[in-house]
Amino acid sequence: MKTGWELYVITDRGLAGGRPVGEVVRQALEGGAEVIQLREKTLPTGKMVELAAALKELTQAYGARVIVNDRLDVALAVDADGVHLGQEDMPARIARRLLGPEKLLGVSVSSVEEALRAVEDGADYVGAGAVFPTATKGEAGVIGIEGLRAIAAAVDLPVVAIGGIDRAKAAEVIAAGAAGVAVVSAVMAAPDPKEAAREILSTVVQAARARAGRT
Amino acid sequence: MKTGWELYVITDRGLAGGRPVGEVVRQALEGGAEVIQLREKTLPTGKMVELAAALKELTQAYGARVIVNDRLDVALAVDADGVHLGQEDMPARIARRLLGPEKLLGVSVSSVEEALRAVEDGADYVGAGAVFPTATKGEAGVIGIEGLRAIAAAVDLPVVAIGGIDRAKAAEVIAAGAAGVAVVSAVMAAPDPKEAAREILSTVVQAARARAGRT
Repeated sequence: MKTGWELYVITDRGLAGGRPVGEVVRQALEGGAEVIQLREKTLPTGKMVELAAALKELTQAYGARVIVNDRLDVALAVDADGVHLGQEDMPARIARRLLGPEKLLGVSVSSVEEALRAVEDGADYVGAGAVFPTATKGEAGVIGIEGLRAIAAAVDLPVVAIGGIDRAKAAEVIAAGAAGVAVVSAVMAAPDPKEAAREILSTVVQAARARAGRT
Repeated sequence: MKTGWELYVITDRGLAGGRPVGEVVRQALEGGAEVIQLREKTLPTGKMVELAAALKELTQAYGARVIVNDRLDVALAVDADGVHLGQEDMPARIARRLLGPEKLLGVSVSSVEEALRAVEDGADYVGAGAVFPTATKGEAGVIGIEGLRAIAAAVDLPVVAIGGIDRAKAAEVIAAGAAGVAVVSAVMAAPDPKEAAREILSTVVQAARARAGRT
């Protein structure tokens, strides 16, 4: 029984290594990705809107969802399924007001305090991390498995674990209480994104089943 | 008789030379600026929203208006008076739909064709330029006084002239049909932004009066 948060893939044009983002996303969706987050920091807004529109069409075709990182304007422009905000982005309570009650709102958190504030501000899910060090950010802001466990215990929302998660580590974060995993390089940089997505999803689903069996 | 478009000041943190943008804007408003455009390309969205909120409060106190460059999300977050879009930003017709009919929508144009499309897409005014070469962009995209005159003749909307305009050149662009001038460095980098704004505004008002007398 899936919740829809098992496999959450975040785009990264650089990691796609010259392949069009839309093509890597299509393969990830083939492999079972349920949420695609468009994270794009450098394109002009017009190009972001074009890419978001393409990802919306793709995710709809696969029964998946598309969420835009930071840019509520881009999300509204293409009627995306939601917005994901970091702690330096627009305050979540303002985003909730502008999005209305139906759209998904996610917030990146790295502490129980931030997670509780996200709940108060109207988040539908939180992205908790970085659970492990990453190539881009190193040890900065790493909360570890214990940090993740504390956040998952503190809030009733789905907690998506992020930061240095690959197939090998996916089972561990699910055991700690995460609803799913958010991955960037594990899918975007994979030679076979479909197979990579399928393997991570299968690991997550198995780990969630094992956790349910224990409780 | 002023139209409200005579003096349009665009922010630039770099040109403010260490002075807070809000302080330079306050002085520009003291000098008579009627529209302040927040143009900010590098701050995290949360900081942009804070700055936009501060500029909204300031402009309201002076009976002026605040317009956000590119970022419709930031404009919506603080209920700004409008949004200004470049040709690489979100399509204007989408922005008009998201903003509703009441908010101001401006579009940067550098040809009659772009100006006519802006009208069709629901713009309330156009920014036409670059009329003169600028320090940052040099000769790129310069339309000259004749380019400005053609745009002003082609559309019924207020045309705000932009690009390398200082007090000395303000009269010339008004004579060519512009409703007002948009300035960046002429106010943001001025040692006395209030006095700079006052002088440009006075030149524009006089030139508009002279033009009205001729027609």
